Amino acid sequence: MTTYRAPVEDYAFVLNDYLALPQYGNLPGFADAAPDTVEAILGEAAKLAEEVLLPLNQSGDREGCIYNAAAKSVTTPTGFKAAYKTFAEGGWTAMTGDPDYGGQGLPALLGSMVSEIFCAANWSFAMYPGLSHGAYSALHTHGTPEQKRTYLPKLVSGEWAGTMNLTEPQCGTDLGLMRTKAEPKGDGSYAITGTKIWISGGEQDLTANTVHLVLAKIPGGPDGIKGVSLFVVPKFLVGADGSLGPRNKAFCGGLDHKMGINGNATCVMNYDGATGWLVGEAHKGMRAMFTMMNEARLGVALQGLAISEIAYQNAREFAKNRLQGRSITGVKNPNGPADPIIVHPDVRRMLMDVKCFNEGARALLLWTALRGDLETKSPDEKVRETSADTMALLTPVLKAYFTDQGFANAVKCQQVFGGSGFTKEYPAEQFVRDARIGMIYEGANGIQALDLVGRKLAANNGRAVFAFFGEIDKTIADSKGNAFLAPWTEGLARARKDLGEATDWLMTNALSDFDNAGAASYDYLYLMALTALAATWMGIAQTAKAKLDRGEGDKAFYETKIATARYFLARALPDTSAHLVKIKSGAAPVMALTAEQF
Amino acid sequence: MTTYRAPVEDYAFVLNDYLALPQYGNLPGFADAAPDTVEAILGEAAKLAEEVLLPLNQSGDREGCIYNAAAKSVTTPTGFKAAYKTFAEGGWTAMTGDPDYGGQGLPALLGSMVSEIFCAANWSFAMYPGLSHGAYSALHTHGTPEQKRTYLPKLVSGEWAGTMNLTEPQCGTDLGLMRTKAEPKGDGSYAITGTKIWISGGEQDLTANTVHLVLAKIPGGPDGIKGVSLFVVPKFLVGADGSLGPRNKAFCGGLDHKMGINGNATCVMNYDGATGWLVGEAHKGMRAMFTMMNEARLGVALQGLAISEIAYQNAREFAKNRLQGRSITGVKNPNGPADPIIVHPDVRRMLMDVKCFNEGARALLLWTALRGDLETKSPDEKVRETSADTMALLTPVLKAYFTDQGFANAVKCQQVFGGSGFTKEYPAEQFVRDARIGMIYEGANGIQALDLVGRKLAANNGRAVFAFFGEIDKTIADSKGNAFLAPWTEGLARARKDLGEATDWLMTNALSDFDNAGAASYDYLYLMALTALAATWMGIAQTAKAKLDRGEGDKAFYETKIATARYFLARALPDTSAHLVKIKSGAAPVMALTAEQF
Repeated sequence: MTTYRAPVEDYAFVLNDYLALPQYGNLPGFADAAPDTVEAILGEAAKLAEEVLLPLNQSGDREGCIYNAAAKSVTTPTGFKAAYKTFAEGGWTAMTGDPDYGGQGLPALLGSMVSEIFCAANWSFAMYPGLSHGAYSALHTHGTPEQKRTYLPKLVSGEWAGTMNLTEPQCGTDLGLMRTKAEPKGDGSYAITGTKIWISGGEQDLTANTVHLVLAKIPGGPDGIKGVSLFVVPKFLVGADGSLGPRNKAFCGGLDHKMGINGNATCVMNYDGATGWLVGEAHKGMRAMFTMMNEARLGVALQGLAISEIAYQNAREFAKNRLQGRSITGVKNPNGPADPIIVHPDVRRMLMDVKCFNEGARALLLWTALRGDLETKSPDEKVRETSADTMALLTPVLKAYFTDQGFANAVKCQQVFGGSGFTKEYPAEQFVRDARIGMIYEGANGIQALDLVGRKLAANNGRAVFAFFGEIDKTIADSKGNAFLAPWTEGLARARKDLGEATDWLMTNALSDFDNAGAASYDYLYLMALTALAATWMGIAQTAKAKLDRGEGDKAFYETKIATARYFLARALPDTSAHLVKIKSGAAPVMALTAEQF
Repeated sequence: MTTYRAPVEDYAFVLNDYLALPQYGNLPGFADAAPDTVEAILGEAAKLAEEVLLPLNQSGDREGCIYNAAAKSVTTPTGFKAAYKTFAEGGWTAMTGDPDYGGQGLPALLGSMVSEIFCAANWSFAMYPGLSHGAYSALHTHGTPEQKRTYLPKLVSGEWAGTMNLTEPQCGTDLGLMRTKAEPKGDGSYAITGTKIWISGGEQDLTANTVHLVLAKIPGGPDGIKGVSLFVVPKFLVGADGSLGPRNKAFCGGLDHKMGINGNATCVMNYDGATGWLVGEAHKGMRAMFTMMNEARLGVALQGLAISEIAYQNAREFAKNRLQGRSITGVKNPNGPADPIIVHPDVRRMLMDVKCFNEGARALLLWTALRGDLETKSPDEKVRETSADTMALLTPVLKAYFTDQGFANAVKCQQVFGGSGFTKEYPAEQFVRDARIGMIYEGANGIQALDLVGRKLAANNGRAVFAFFGEIDKTIADSKGNAFLAPWTEGLARARKDLGEATDWLMTNALSDFDNAGAASYDYLYLMALTALAATWMGIAQTAKAKLDRGEGDKAFYETKIATARYFLARALPDTSAHLVKIKSGAAPVMALTAEQF
């Protein structure tokens, strides 16, 4: 019943035309990402997603994960284990990994594309290797040489999985309230004791070992968040020769029952004096954890896009096939009892909203992911700095905006189905339930907004945001006199003006009353997202026009891009002005009531 | 775990202060609705909702309804049967019923309030008597004297339930495609044959009999929607003395599995030559069905409000009790490990959005419901006409906007819970799943928007919309020079201007290209909803100010109203301008693509 085809043509457009990827051929790994190689990789990923992961998506939701209390083990849904084996053996866990540890060293950009495909086909499944990759990154950046030798090859090969252990019952956002303790055992290791909740993949039956990354406090360290350290706690201790030793005292205490992503095991993890080793410096655990979280946040943005894409494809097929009513401008399907509902303007409005988000978001996300590659791989220090700045600035924007829209779009696509969308006969309702988590985990979206206005804007005296503005201003200036681009130039200039005014307002008003920043944060994030998308769509329109002018490629494809770029101006961008008005209304209306008056 | 207290203080404010209900004491039934009587009724409703219906809400969701294939019967969740008995015996099914048939004849307005309370406490449960009331209304308006005598007393007493049978697999919105047949049997009755789907309460174990209202086509009648007639088809045939006779051939063929409202039985109904009787004229079934649907649509608007209210109350309690982080303006809870999250501006933004909707929507809904009473009960013909016009105009607006907001608010409230909101330990995720149906059933919200721009605006040469504008213009003119009201007057005038411009644009552009109406319809509906709410909030602010000036009542209550009215201006109303821009962008961007280009 569920339709999904990986959007490979759109990837080719974004990579080859919009980002002009071949120009980066001098970066490590990019030479291996020539268009034909990329096409082959995407083709294989699409095949795996469509043939192996997609068929397990609905059954995984229905069946869920099972906790076996006696063994403290978890059984993942039928088929997940075999699919994971195929996945790991196909080299997908190794794709962007460091060649020193068995990875293929391909650009992170490519990893993003492939992740979108896997996540669209089966969000719950894709989370297992997704979290392993986060653990890989934290250890790769902060681990000792021995830790890297011990864990990275197995994480890269997919033989072992990884997890992130932050949350406890009394602390989610506020990790300073953490109670899990790490007591030095005198031999360089620590005894970890405490309870962690909502640990995705904390226990599963897919891999031989699990590498838990656990935040805990070393007694005697500073209070609050400054006393938190990061530890690596393997499920099975690892011998010097890499063999699996005794079972560590890290056990799953139960599973959470959730609204969605039922195929992924969300675990309570009990550490009862489990043996762990410090990763990075003592009391600097948050820094190491942020390595995982920033990567994870961009990964979550991508999940928002992925669910929006598969929801769209299914709604589109329904809208083309469901016959109901006649077009208000005259019969379009005279041989049928009614017209397909895609003729109705309000059905198109919903589909166009989603299509327009998907394609704009995909280009923006890949543009941003490329900054991630440039940040680590460019030989030019200035490029590395600017890329790191842009990544840091846009990560919370993309995480919050893409997951909000991913959910809203899943809801819109469900609406296209009418009553059928509410029943479990169609996949639309599962997409909505799965999509919902994206707005919550890896830092609830309100926290992303606070990260943006409270941290990212101010960092290095606003260097990142001013560089972002500079790039937009240059884009606007460069397009002067270009009649074709004029509508986009105008739209971008208007958004840029609204965002500039909002930024000025924040600079003037946030220091005198921090609540002005908090009250403005969410609208500010949306305003920045829309501005970034306006720049993206302008680039897309320009790219498509150039292809048409040169008579290259598929004419209808590029014309569709330009029509969709027009839709963005007409129907998505106008919201910037309302965001600005709300921002400038300040904290007073938000803060007026006492807690009792609510 | 679930919190709910019926908002009785807010009802008292809306009825006594805002609507000044006592002035309508000369209408039938209104004399019985004196403030102290109303207070007593609401108190009893609150008790029933909080003590009987609320405890069954979560268990009803988990357990769902069970179909017994052998008997073709349905078992509702544990406790529903006993609760229904209490409900009916308490006289709640009879409250607004015609005294000629055993009803209490109280204003529809009161029925709306009580329905909000019941629906908030248990949406699935409240649907059973809700649909009975729809069947009651259709028979009361269109039934023969004999049909009324046979069915109305039992529907009023709640001994029997009612259903609405419209949808078939091949036709939902487009009822002209209907296949169910009604063949005259020669004795005045018809043999009804066909399959109906998504029939809420089609089969249940709560009542002794069920009165199905079924749309079907009499062979030889006109094609399409003009050949549809309405029939009454009782589950058990009724003898001349009112006793139950043989089982009719109207059987439940199975239940739908759904995203939410699992406590309500959504049935496939098979009519295999079931005996039915024509209600109203042959081939005029849609007219009779619209009687049910219009009432049902306002009832669905109310469901949107109800779910938003209970979602809000639970999120508010969580936000007051969950300690996490410190206020950015300084510690607020020095004796605790952290501050309650209600100190954070972005948490307040979410709560205020919902509170502001709930109170504005409640006042607007009750104001509209009062038009329903005036439409049928006023001795003044002009008042009856204007009230009917306003009801017809606002019904689609409230149905779509309130259910969209009810869902969006359930999502916002779930967000306040952070990760807890995604787990089934808290009620937030069920509220989201239940709320979702409101946007779909009784005419998907896109259909409401089309009803508004395609039918309601044009009816009687725009008499209803011009009267609506006239009332707003008078409100604005009357407040000239009132310094206190100035911000609301300005806000309302701006919204009125945007709505006026949008209406002019439609009148100029929709006739030349109907797609312009379709493409604009959804934004137009939102623009009208926001304008109606602006007028409502202005009235609320004025009412509260008058109470404060006179030193009457609870000062903090009225101050809270005014602060919330300010929030509406700052944070909800600014969207009107973006809606206008989108409307004026016309059909071209929406209709640009061929079906293949999607």
